[in-house]
Amino acid sequence: MSIETTLGRGLDSIFRPGSIAVIGASVDHRKTGGRPVHLLKMHGYAGRILPVNPKGGEIQGLQGYTSVAELPEVPELALIAVPGAGALEAARDCAERGVPAAIVLSAGFAEQGPEGVARQAELKAIADRSGMRVLGPNCLGTVSVPERAIGTFSVALETAMPAEGPVAIVSQSGNVGSLAMKMLGQSGAGISRFLASGNECDVDIADAIAWCAGDAATKVILCCMETCRDAGRLTRALDMARAADKPVIVLKMGASDAGQAAAMSHTGGLAGSDRVFDAVFAAHGAVRVRSLEMLVQFGSAVAALGARRISDRPSVSVIAASGGFGIMMADAAEAQGVTLNRTGPAAQEKIRAVLPLASSVNPVDATAQMSASPETFEALVSAICEDDANEVVCVMMALGLEVPRLRDVYMNALASLRARFPDRVIVACVAGPDDALRALNGIGIVTFPTIDAMMEGVAAIGRLSGAGADNAPAARIDAAPLDRAAVTNEAGAKRVLGAAGVRFPQEIVATSAKEASNAAQKVGMPVAMKILSADIQHKSDIGGVELGVTGAEAAAAYDRILAAARQHAPEARIDGVLVAPMILGGTELILGTTTDPIFGPVVMVGLGGIFAEVFRDTALRVAPVTLPEAHEMLRALKSFPLLDGARGRPKADVESAAQAIVALSEFAVRHASDVAEIDINPLLVRDAGQGAIALDALIVPHGDTKAEAAE
Amino acid sequence: MSIETTLGRGLDSIFRPGSIAVIGASVDHRKTGGRPVHLLKMHGYAGRILPVNPKGGEIQGLQGYTSVAELPEVPELALIAVPGAGALEAARDCAERGVPAAIVLSAGFAEQGPEGVARQAELKAIADRSGMRVLGPNCLGTVSVPERAIGTFSVALETAMPAEGPVAIVSQSGNVGSLAMKMLGQSGAGISRFLASGNECDVDIADAIAWCAGDAATKVILCCMETCRDAGRLTRALDMARAADKPVIVLKMGASDAGQAAAMSHTGGLAGSDRVFDAVFAAHGAVRVRSLEMLVQFGSAVAALGARRISDRPSVSVIAASGGFGIMMADAAEAQGVTLNRTGPAAQEKIRAVLPLASSVNPVDATAQMSASPETFEALVSAICEDDANEVVCVMMALGLEVPRLRDVYMNALASLRARFPDRVIVACVAGPDDALRALNGIGIVTFPTIDAMMEGVAAIGRLSGAGADNAPAARIDAAPLDRAAVTNEAGAKRVLGAAGVRFPQEIVATSAKEASNAAQKVGMPVAMKILSADIQHKSDIGGVELGVTGAEAAAAYDRILAAARQHAPEARIDGVLVAPMILGGTELILGTTTDPIFGPVVMVGLGGIFAEVFRDTALRVAPVTLPEAHEMLRALKSFPLLDGARGRPKADVESAAQAIVALSEFAVRHASDVAEIDINPLLVRDAGQGAIALDALIVPHGDTKAEAAE
Repeated sequence: MSIETTLGRGLDSIFRPGSIAVIGASVDHRKTGGRPVHLLKMHGYAGRILPVNPKGGEIQGLQGYTSVAELPEVPELALIAVPGAGALEAARDCAERGVPAAIVLSAGFAEQGPEGVARQAELKAIADRSGMRVLGPNCLGTVSVPERAIGTFSVALETAMPAEGPVAIVSQSGNVGSLAMKMLGQSGAGISRFLASGNECDVDIADAIAWCAGDAATKVILCCMETCRDAGRLTRALDMARAADKPVIVLKMGASDAGQAAAMSHTGGLAGSDRVFDAVFAAHGAVRVRSLEMLVQFGSAVAALGARRISDRPSVSVIAASGGFGIMMADAAEAQGVTLNRTGPAAQEKIRAVLPLASSVNPVDATAQMSASPETFEALVSAICEDDANEVVCVMMALGLEVPRLRDVYMNALASLRARFPDRVIVACVAGPDDALRALNGIGIVTFPTIDAMMEGVAAIGRLSGAGADNAPAARIDAAPLDRAAVTNEAGAKRVLGAAGVRFPQEIVATSAKEASNAAQKVGMPVAMKILSADIQHKSDIGGVELGVTGAEAAAAYDRILAAARQHAPEARIDGVLVAPMILGGTELILGTTTDPIFGPVVMVGLGGIFAEVFRDTALRVAPVTLPEAHEMLRALKSFPLLDGARGRPKADVESAAQAIVALSEFAVRHASDVAEIDINPLLVRDAGQGAIALDALIVPHGDTKAEAAE
Repeated sequence: MSIETTLGRGLDSIFRPGSIAVIGASVDHRKTGGRPVHLLKMHGYAGRILPVNPKGGEIQGLQGYTSVAELPEVPELALIAVPGAGALEAARDCAERGVPAAIVLSAGFAEQGPEGVARQAELKAIADRSGMRVLGPNCLGTVSVPERAIGTFSVALETAMPAEGPVAIVSQSGNVGSLAMKMLGQSGAGISRFLASGNECDVDIADAIAWCAGDAATKVILCCMETCRDAGRLTRALDMARAADKPVIVLKMGASDAGQAAAMSHTGGLAGSDRVFDAVFAAHGAVRVRSLEMLVQFGSAVAALGARRISDRPSVSVIAASGGFGIMMADAAEAQGVTLNRTGPAAQEKIRAVLPLASSVNPVDATAQMSASPETFEALVSAICEDDANEVVCVMMALGLEVPRLRDVYMNALASLRARFPDRVIVACVAGPDDALRALNGIGIVTFPTIDAMMEGVAAIGRLSGAGADNAPAARIDAAPLDRAAVTNEAGAKRVLGAAGVRFPQEIVATSAKEASNAAQKVGMPVAMKILSADIQHKSDIGGVELGVTGAEAAAAYDRILAAARQHAPEARIDGVLVAPMILGGTELILGTTTDPIFGPVVMVGLGGIFAEVFRDTALRVAPVTLPEAHEMLRALKSFPLLDGARGRPKADVESAAQAIVALSEFAVRHASDVAEIDINPLLVRDAGQGAIALDALIVPHGDTKAEAAE
């Protein structure tokens, strides 16, 4: 079956079951097997609850059954809460009985050594054979708020059910997702669905994203991700959500080396490159956030935002009752790449008419006059809303809604502003009280609890419009075999990459002093001469490179190079000496590809030379990339000004550099089954119109390490 | 009087007055003049409240007086809440009556045009003449929580008095400080003093910091700063707090260009360079934070920390009941430069004994076992506390304290751990409930509400130990005059800077072709020749520079340069041609000084060449700097690895580069009254032992702009 038809299959039974069996149900509502029964009853699930326990009898006031076989009906969903081997048996029983879906809450699977791995493989086999969807094992399960369908023992539900709302949470980590649910249900936009996928033997987060894309109760999808076990399913699910116009907001953990190490040990999954995840999310329209708080706050913001959108370089008007807050908002905006344009003259005049002492430019400082005369608030914000200078209106509310005297005045003003300016994005910085936040979100006023979060959120709202959404996708590239033997040395690598569209200088392989002399004369300018051997890595170190050689000197240089090679690397197979024109000038880039363990070929470009290493100034994308994407990569470099005419330098041939990136990325995809890595260093980008020329190239096939391949 | 004797003078009357007159007192407790009376009564101020209003009569149940003169006693503190001109009159009355201190809450002073500026000057004159300390005008005043002494109309006190605690808040912005007070009083460590200084015509934040340094009720000082009006007072006050062992935590607003512009328009103060503020805070032991939330959270953390300190490169053990949280904590730690070392084997064994399924390495994942058996928590954390691998123990509590079943277990465990490991820094990530946070802080357990804040906080705790505290201060440098006429051209600048200890190549000024020839022969290697003229800025552009000239070619080169100068700059006064050895190799730095409008001469070092501009890789300090400080500046450069042997390069002569920085910084201080700016570009740092040589120098005197001075 194709990914499209399997993604989300059968999740109706998980999210909206008509009946739920709890296998391992306990009379003690604090125990893992007792809690789901307790929670289902406590929160008023309307379907049938079927507790299963070998002892039978009454369980928390309900009729208990001794086995799955004994159940009076086939439950639509089975919660399995018995340990290890017992869980496997329960899953088998459910599959035999024809249960369409099971959630294995129990731990003791792949997270726990070889025995657990075997047990999980068996669980997956049961799912595959029977067609029963299995969520987990070792997972925190699900909550469907509209139906009160609870498939979890999460402590987050012990005190209250989260408020119902339009936000779905899809998480690999149970506790992280569970805390997000608590926060969203408390002061945020409220929850539609919650799913924690744990070890993902069958149902994964891609399933859940795809199902939520089609769920009427869900408008926004939050995703907490530790790893990705299937790149194709994930990207397809993200595309489905984008097509359904449901923003996906991702908290991807393991951004740091330390975090990646922790993630690998925790999930047993591949880490992949965190920067590749960035590229994948950007390409498939998901917005990445960097903290659990921002996930929740931005999720609520997007829910409140509705269909309103702003540009990806947003500008804001900032209003506060204090100069200090205005300064902080300006600081935070600049840190997030958000602009403050000057308030227009008409708006300034209106502001001064209402509050003569106010500073009427952006940031607008309403001064203490506003708390003395809170009724001026609406006129002030209205003047800004009528002004076209900025896209977003940001209001610092501070303690405004905590003071009873002020709360109603401000709330009514905001409601009136919302009605008068329905399309304006209005953002309030206010931390509480919770019911006021919910009320504001409910009418489409976005809230954030801190100034930094507000400006980070405004920048993220800008990213919702999806800078890359209009890009035509890269053309499909068919795989083709590569003659590995032909690319072991520099000349071979250059030949195939040259044929693929990367430009190299015209070079000649000389196999005698006479040929070298002829070659140098033919070039007609000083040449670089390099030993050509798959066995010699550090050519310069052994005297295998001579630079600036004239035609007259070439024969002698050839002999010196060969003699040096024979002395320092007597065993090396020598393919000759490469004679190439000396090319100087231009800006050095490095260009390369690697193979990400999750997402496959990835293309990278960076500033060349020693600075690349110190400043780590690189951009990467999953290959293949289109020409517009290659330009975006170059513009994303901090050092892009060096190519773009900084300090009076001539502009470089960026178009040619972008073409080289495209060609390399397509080559990497075409030969993905043979090629692990490619290095082009340097790519010399000359003045506009003069092209970008690669001076060295190395292709590392799969199975080789870079050190084994020739330099 | 010296700064030392005036700082904080008379602030006893502001913070601990025996009686408070409210001038402009209103019967309406919502009005600006009515609120202080209302608040003093409501919160139980024990001193005498003396309302003054021309109408007299009873005011909010108290005897009112028609004028200051009519008051039955001299109040220790006067709150002035009448508008503009009336405020000035009231201040005059108070001064005449011998009132020791007044708080002018009223606006309408320097923040409001020329008339207001004049009014503020008169207020300052009253303060200066009488010796009465004046806080404000246009300020939010003060709160002293222990004494219930309220000198404000802040809405933050309308619902409740903040909880009493060891944290003082000193703020220029009233509303920002007031929100900090609310937050600290609600979920934080509690408040001792609050002071908002507004326009600072007399009392400034330096006064308040100095007074709090000697205040028994205060252990930590939080400072919200928009500008600094007196560098000497501020740095001295910070030194006093450091000497009293009271950490000062600063939220300096206006970090961005947009924020600085807003700050200048709001405070009317000078912006100064935000990076110079960084350098000043670091040098005087204040810890800078970047958000209001971190100010409050870190302030509470420092209060809970007591005398415990950690190194400035802290390492943490991380414990969570979920792998996902562990990954996020590892990510956040790495982002803050905090290390996670591996848990020791003994601790690992203890952990496995308690929780067999737990991941016992760092981050420790206690798994769902812990919420099922919360009593294991103490044993787990205890195992880590006994381990020496990391300095700080960080525990992710998530919802732990919100669940009644778990709260007592965890709280008791933490109390027991605190008693058993009194010196350990134990940090809990937990957002509530507020009373639990206060209880934990009270026993010395540090709390932060989010993972990011926790790791940012741990890094900030490391900075408390004060990396620079042990540095001997720079020697005092006496001012000396500089012959400005002698430094207008490159040769003159090099001469005086060379005498001050910056190393230059030996250069000869030739004033004829013959002299040039002799000079080049004397150098004995290829030379660089440059036109010498204070009137020619872009020497290369007009053909005024020739490089790699041999002795034989020097005479002709001299003539060419002179001819070029005569052609392109016929009016220029020519002082000759500079003949200098061609020096190649080494790493290019730029070295310079500027004059900060607030803090005076500042020395800067950065990576040279075109990369400096693109990567903005510079470090700066207030001059003069010591040799250890100069080394710290160099090590702070992102490009320091280039000097330190990156990629197999030889190590550079960092010691010589540091000496050049010291020499330049001392020169800038000695000649601060003449010199506005110095540029040394490049400083060529050669291999270790071979020195650092400056190849060009420019001195810009005060009053000149750089463009006017020679290149």
